[in-house]
Amino acid sequence: MADLSHIELDPASDTPLYKQLADSIRSLVERGSLGAGERLPATRELAGLLGLNRTTISSAYAVLEESGLIKGHVGRGSFITSGVRSAGGAMDWESILPPLAPFIGSPHGISISFANSRPAEDAFPMAQFRRLSKQVVDSPEAPGILQLGSPHGYAPLRRFLLDQAVSQGIARGSDDLMITNGCQQGLDLIARLFVAGKETAALEDPVYHGSLKVFTRAGAQIIPIPVDGAGMNVDALREAVEQHRPRVLVVTPSFQNPTGITLILERRKRIVEIAQRFGVVLIENDIYSDLRYRGKPLPTLKELDDSGQTILLRSYSKISFPGLRVGWLIAPRPVVARLAEVKQISDLHSDQLSQAILLRFAQSGELDRHLERTRRAGLERLNAIIEACEHYLPPGATLTRPEGGMNLWIELPPPLTATRLLASVQERGVDFLPGPYFSSQRAHERGLRISFGGLRPEQIRRGMQILGEVATTELAARAQPVNLEAAAALV
Amino acid sequence: MADLSHIELDPASDTPLYKQLADSIRSLVERGSLGAGERLPATRELAGLLGLNRTTISSAYAVLEESGLIKGHVGRGSFITSGVRSAGGAMDWESILPPLAPFIGSPHGISISFANSRPAEDAFPMAQFRRLSKQVVDSPEAPGILQLGSPHGYAPLRRFLLDQAVSQGIARGSDDLMITNGCQQGLDLIARLFVAGKETAALEDPVYHGSLKVFTRAGAQIIPIPVDGAGMNVDALREAVEQHRPRVLVVTPSFQNPTGITLILERRKRIVEIAQRFGVVLIENDIYSDLRYRGKPLPTLKELDDSGQTILLRSYSKISFPGLRVGWLIAPRPVVARLAEVKQISDLHSDQLSQAILLRFAQSGELDRHLERTRRAGLERLNAIIEACEHYLPPGATLTRPEGGMNLWIELPPPLTATRLLASVQERGVDFLPGPYFSSQRAHERGLRISFGGLRPEQIRRGMQILGEVATTELAARAQPVNLEAAAALV
Repeated sequence: MADLSHIELDPASDTPLYKQLADSIRSLVERGSLGAGERLPATRELAGLLGLNRTTISSAYAVLEESGLIKGHVGRGSFITSGVRSAGGAMDWESILPPLAPFIGSPHGISISFANSRPAEDAFPMAQFRRLSKQVVDSPEAPGILQLGSPHGYAPLRRFLLDQAVSQGIARGSDDLMITNGCQQGLDLIARLFVAGKETAALEDPVYHGSLKVFTRAGAQIIPIPVDGAGMNVDALREAVEQHRPRVLVVTPSFQNPTGITLILERRKRIVEIAQRFGVVLIENDIYSDLRYRGKPLPTLKELDDSGQTILLRSYSKISFPGLRVGWLIAPRPVVARLAEVKQISDLHSDQLSQAILLRFAQSGELDRHLERTRRAGLERLNAIIEACEHYLPPGATLTRPEGGMNLWIELPPPLTATRLLASVQERGVDFLPGPYFSSQRAHERGLRISFGGLRPEQIRRGMQILGEVATTELAARAQPVNLEAAAALV
Repeated sequence: MADLSHIELDPASDTPLYKQLADSIRSLVERGSLGAGERLPATRELAGLLGLNRTTISSAYAVLEESGLIKGHVGRGSFITSGVRSAGGAMDWESILPPLAPFIGSPHGISISFANSRPAEDAFPMAQFRRLSKQVVDSPEAPGILQLGSPHGYAPLRRFLLDQAVSQGIARGSDDLMITNGCQQGLDLIARLFVAGKETAALEDPVYHGSLKVFTRAGAQIIPIPVDGAGMNVDALREAVEQHRPRVLVVTPSFQNPTGITLILERRKRIVEIAQRFGVVLIENDIYSDLRYRGKPLPTLKELDDSGQTILLRSYSKISFPGLRVGWLIAPRPVVARLAEVKQISDLHSDQLSQAILLRFAQSGELDRHLERTRRAGLERLNAIIEACEHYLPPGATLTRPEGGMNLWIELPPPLTATRLLASVQERGVDFLPGPYFSSQRAHERGLRISFGGLRPEQIRRGMQILGEVATTELAARAQPVNLEAAAALV
């Protein structure tokens, strides 16, 4: 608590008392006597201390708050915010910055990690990458690639992707395409364009945490729409849209992160209808759809939408090399024009060397060959994880049955919880991300996201064996009957 | 204007009239009868039309605005915003999106462009780049480089840059370093962390437009601080800081964009003092300092600041290859920790291939050799532009005399203006950016930013000759006395 007892004011002065008080506090801050984060006395208290009217104190605090020197927090009092140095003369950042989010990361000693939704490093087609990237750096285009580029992206890649999307029936003549640093930046740019101010965003529940963070940080009110075995629940969506009129709706129709679930065709159509009817901007996060291991491909929402409500996000990161940050978005031209403005403010443009290399990777046919291999390996991994789940998980556990992608979702039987289980399996070298990490409303305490895309089948089996053993043991321990043989009272 | 004349309400109903009216308007929107951007009648007008009390109309509009279906604009009326489709069934984006910023770009037929602050493509050390990037893609580290990385940046580059900064006395033990997509993203992440809400940002005037846009878009109130021949005017700064208590202050101490001016040592010290005293977050945009062609290097603000107020931004883009988007920032650890959170939300992490290549470029000594050549060429270009300005510009024009960087600032004598001159010189194949583009307050109508960094001396001379000729001609034309021999009246 700041000590203000020695402040002296002059009742005879022409300067009002509240202003004298505000000036005194300000000069204490400037002299470094008051530091960032220090709490000021409550108005009643300071009024008593200085023998002043309480409204004088309130007015002085109001003036200081107006100038940004202090900040009031309801129920906690007023604090020095800026214009300050801590006692030692160094800026006291911890006291003025927002708290850090809790760290989510793997501890040391993890040998099998189900925590990362990313491809396996040892499956990267390195020979092809090396050959093609050397072609790019040797090409006469190289100096142009290294020069400052366009916010819309490297023109040859942009043209290639747009032509491809048009020929696939995904983009129309009224659409444009822009390169982004992966889908993550696509989501971020969209949030910055559409939810500035207090807009509402409807997201899946459970939801990809990176999407949740983007819209939360942009200041959006989040409306969670439950995902069930057939994808986003459209009745719940319809109700939520009628009630909350969200500005944007984010849907991952194929192999949703974290559940792995695919949105069925009938629901795809209904979601587009709802978005059209209520004028909701429909954001289709289509990062996994090329990783279908079984079943028939479904049309994107963008293809089903003839009204231009939909912004389609895609990326090379999951299907090739995540370390090269190249994704793209397809949307009606007026939308892309605005998003390009936000992109330019964000980082001028995306890295051009990676764009040029990935273009060559796609044009040479190597991407398709890599995708074929990835799908074959993916099917093996998918079968391995489902078989291992069925074999090792305790009775009462449920799992989704994805047709592709990198993730699968387990629900543990009560009274088990994911966070408790995580602590135990980490001790045995296995890692995953617990349900609450994907929670925008329901806590998903019993949910586990199991990312199998980057692991070999034998790792998947071994990891799931450990997870299943730990879960079974914990379940048994908790199922023990309560000990009714009470100890004798201590006297 | 929306036609609401056929709306019928039931005064006998239990539902209040305002609610009936709101429901009617909503259903018109849902049926597509009302489109995005359509204006609703004024409350007085609709009240007359429907024979209702004006407060009934106001209440209905309030309900619709609350639900986001309409938006009121002071003095313009209320408009349909969302929940809409245009008449043709397609989303009418132009009517609901903010207007595009006016396009700034070179017209066709420009042969000498002073408009781009970027290095010359023909000076890129291509042989070295090719050799080193092949080493990177062939290295055993390549698969790891292509895998998902860290928001903080590629660890070996981050370590290298931090070690370098520590050995140069720029970073202290309490500092950390984070890779960004060039300085532009550094500015953007800082704005997103520090000016959320209605904070105040003090910027140079004239100012780098990319910085102005970042802080304007973040919602900051901009306080312009004039730049004179010795850099930012510290008396004006002191006054502005006392009055407005800005949260952040952005300074480009060396070869400022757009003026090319260097902040003198005494002012560097005073700026740090002011920032410390008033607790302003000091952002040092140090993108050009390695491009000093004459005179003695000066310490960075970061070096002069022992209180940890300063965030230093640097980049490889101006000193090597702008198409590879790699910059970095150095700041106290608590600040970097928060900025890394924002970075992760923005785009997960920066492209790793470019980071690895630029690391090798720096570690191999090729960057230093390239910098030496660039400085020699830069001196020649700088001399050429100053000589050409002195030789060709009309009397009364003034110019800055940079000691490095890529830009120089000309003030035309009145009544010439930069935008009028631009139109004429573009016809002759010469381009530059006019003063108003760098304006946060003063219009700088007579200012020209001349970017000479990417042009050869003969281009510089030829371009400035054309510019000088056009300016001289226009000046002479405007100096003609008014024709006093009036024509006879027409009868």
